Amino acid sequence: MSVKQLDSLDKIVSLSKARGFIFQSSEIYGGLSAVYDYGPLGVELKRNIRDAWWKAMTQTHDNIVGVDAAIFMHPKVWEASGHVEGFNDPMIDDKQSKKRYRADMLIEQHIQKLRDKGKSDKADELQQKLDTTGTRKGLCEDLYDIIMEEEIKAPESGAFDWTEVRQFNLMFKTHYGATSKDDDDAIYLRPETAQGIFVNYKNVLDTARVQIPFGIAQVGKAFRNEVVARQFVFRMREFEQMEMQYFVQPGEDEKSYEEWLNTRLEWFKSLGIREENLRVAPHPDDKLAHYARAAADIQFNFPIGWQEVEGIHNRTDFDLSRHQEYSGKKMEYFDQKEQKRYIPYVVETSIGLDRCTLMALCDAYREEEVDGDSRTVLKLHPKLAPTKVGIFPLVKKPELKELAFKIEKNLKEDFTVLYDESGSIGKRYRRQDEAGTPFCITVDFDGLEDNTVTIRYRDDMEQERVSVDKLDTVIRNRMKSWKSE
Amino acid sequence: MSVKQLDSLDKIVSLSKARGFIFQSSEIYGGLSAVYDYGPLGVELKRNIRDAWWKAMTQTHDNIVGVDAAIFMHPKVWEASGHVEGFNDPMIDDKQSKKRYRADMLIEQHIQKLRDKGKSDKADELQQKLDTTGTRKGLCEDLYDIIMEEEIKAPESGAFDWTEVRQFNLMFKTHYGATSKDDDDAIYLRPETAQGIFVNYKNVLDTARVQIPFGIAQVGKAFRNEVVARQFVFRMREFEQMEMQYFVQPGEDEKSYEEWLNTRLEWFKSLGIREENLRVAPHPDDKLAHYARAAADIQFNFPIGWQEVEGIHNRTDFDLSRHQEYSGKKMEYFDQKEQKRYIPYVVETSIGLDRCTLMALCDAYREEEVDGDSRTVLKLHPKLAPTKVGIFPLVKKPELKELAFKIEKNLKEDFTVLYDESGSIGKRYRRQDEAGTPFCITVDFDGLEDNTVTIRYRDDMEQERVSVDKLDTVIRNRMKSWKSE
Repeated sequence: MSVKQLDSLDKIVSLSKARGFIFQSSEIYGGLSAVYDYGPLGVELKRNIRDAWWKAMTQTHDNIVGVDAAIFMHPKVWEASGHVEGFNDPMIDDKQSKKRYRADMLIEQHIQKLRDKGKSDKADELQQKLDTTGTRKGLCEDLYDIIMEEEIKAPESGAFDWTEVRQFNLMFKTHYGATSKDDDDAIYLRPETAQGIFVNYKNVLDTARVQIPFGIAQVGKAFRNEVVARQFVFRMREFEQMEMQYFVQPGEDEKSYEEWLNTRLEWFKSLGIREENLRVAPHPDDKLAHYARAAADIQFNFPIGWQEVEGIHNRTDFDLSRHQEYSGKKMEYFDQKEQKRYIPYVVETSIGLDRCTLMALCDAYREEEVDGDSRTVLKLHPKLAPTKVGIFPLVKKPELKELAFKIEKNLKEDFTVLYDESGSIGKRYRRQDEAGTPFCITVDFDGLEDNTVTIRYRDDMEQERVSVDKLDTVIRNRMKSWKSE
Repeated sequence: MSVKQLDSLDKIVSLSKARGFIFQSSEIYGGLSAVYDYGPLGVELKRNIRDAWWKAMTQTHDNIVGVDAAIFMHPKVWEASGHVEGFNDPMIDDKQSKKRYRADMLIEQHIQKLRDKGKSDKADELQQKLDTTGTRKGLCEDLYDIIMEEEIKAPESGAFDWTEVRQFNLMFKTHYGATSKDDDDAIYLRPETAQGIFVNYKNVLDTARVQIPFGIAQVGKAFRNEVVARQFVFRMREFEQMEMQYFVQPGEDEKSYEEWLNTRLEWFKSLGIREENLRVAPHPDDKLAHYARAAADIQFNFPIGWQEVEGIHNRTDFDLSRHQEYSGKKMEYFDQKEQKRYIPYVVETSIGLDRCTLMALCDAYREEEVDGDSRTVLKLHPKLAPTKVGIFPLVKKPELKELAFKIEKNLKEDFTVLYDESGSIGKRYRRQDEAGTPFCITVDFDGLEDNTVTIRYRDDMEQERVSVDKLDTVIRNRMKSWKSE
């Protein structure tokens, strides 16, 4: 058998659309850029990943509890977090087309063009200038100067008719409540879920009987008006985060950071993601975010290259201290064991659910040639598979359908099942291979005699004769013992 | 034993805050009106209700699949749905305080004041006038005229200095993407999840191998800038909907509507909600929404009165026809059995997850007097209970803790468990009663000899001696056989 691994993201995009994992958003209206809708298979895959994360973080950890904060938060939250002041991109408008561009990316594209033309000396010089923007007049002014000096034109209109470079905030703004004073009621869609945890830290302390170290976990939507949102669900304007903030005694943060980095890496393996497609990439000290003392990405080997799927951050006491300052509420913790009072340090694990879903699809994808026949198969961990069991009567005879329905009825309380009676058995297997369904059950005439059916396994396509009464156990055992290959 | 049922919503609000079910949003900043955050217990309760719904709708129905559409949708969607034009409230601004009020509610409050003063003739006359607004000059003008004639003053400033009455749209608006033309990129936060299903109807048809009748289910956030948002999580500006649209052949819609009304009512009972607290309230024909041919609420007996928790609507082909008109895409279905082509009718079941969570809390709440002692207890269905099992060592001795940890380790793969060693056993039971935990396990010295523990049941406070090895089975059986009382 020859096996071909995934070699382009386009194959996942096509499969996603064709099989109902992920659709373009508002497709009948020509689509809305940089957001996507999950179809019948995609919603189940995403749910399974979300549930696996939630269980791993809360149910199996004594000292981690969940919260679910609203997307709308008090505007002061984003002053305290630094997002109002610092969550910006430098933008420039083409006056002719009214299109807006990210100034630094215009320059980067220009540098790439120079390289393509073989002008690498000039390109290097300009790159050096771009890397040091903000050191001359100021970031916006320095970017503007380069665009002027190089006479960079607007990519779409071809015009050289620019506004100044200005900082634009990436948060979506809307107006909340009922007043006619427009500026008073401005509110943002949260650009990250983390702040919903920090503002509830005291509430959790007061009600959940937790002691340091403890964690708070949350899953929810976040929104960023990214100018360059692209690469399918990898970078979207609306996305789902799964975050956990772990509160520790200062001094314990570095150890905790190392432990969580390790724990989180193991979690990906527990989803069946192949080890060779995972790596840890620590952020160099000079690239750390303002709030971080240490940070690392867990990266996956996407067809577009190694990219972050999760970030582990040592955020120190930055966030709680800022909220103490801005809210005037004490964020200190009295540690009874140590008999001292302190603002806890925070180790954060932050994962994008959408790109985690994309990762699962990419990792599972195979094209296989078997005896001159070919198939596309998603070798998803059975616990992630949208449909666990396909149930097929060999032909559309009432007596076979009857037994198939009986089996379906027995299994559907515990598993997601799919009944399918159309097309040849081979075609039905292929459809379920593409959907990642790990088990298919075929009901034939022999089975009416001896109450057995054929169970066919997705990964090796082996078939086995199993008693109807044992199906449940066979499936459970196979799910437990499953290993990625 | 004397039992007292819930008599005021305030008790739920207090319990929610004290025990960590539901907190005021952004509380450390003084709160944000009309949204709430779910705490450690609340998030589990909400998750359990959501999961029960999802399983009931998709997993156990052959012909219902899920989707998860983005909150951001193409703006045309809201023209097609009628929300841009019709989703308005008539508002009036007090020029002095800059506060905005709903004009009809100002008049209603005025009428109430008249009644309080015994001027019921005048009140009746005004009510009659209010009921016929829109029949004279127009809705806004008629409301304005009443406010002027009655010289109704602004409730907060006391001023009589009004703007005109204008229609304000209840959708939250924001700006999307990168262009400097502000009007071009206006986008709305979805005011309902239903449209995410209608725009994906064709995608589902093309990929999921479904045939009419079939359903599409979805859970997700929706947003409405309600002026009068109040009564805790009952009416919020950000809320979570669980909706299912069921596509049927025209002519089958009335039957399907009756069936779904029935099926959904049964679902509430399956959550343990007491029958006497549930009722069906059909909408009178003259109160139907513009898209509906028939509609009914499933109502729950809240302390604030009978209120809708779910709506069942026969939406006819209104939505698909409108989307066909606005998108230019054919929404017809070819029915192979009937050999004809038609736009399906839609029966919708639409439930608010937040108010469903509130319902579960209200229904479960009891104050009980037992032998001179009192307790507050949440008699939640075990499958909804945030924590399934409390595990307590009788005292803080290492050997008891060791057995307790062993039991915790065995159970926590399958159940949400909580270990607690602080306070008297009686206090620990009371805490778990308030959290709705159905099972508590106490480890004592006898248990070290014979490997048994005491299991205590929340509802009747009965205690039983059970072998450690049988705990799993005892809990499972009790969960299955549980009945509300």
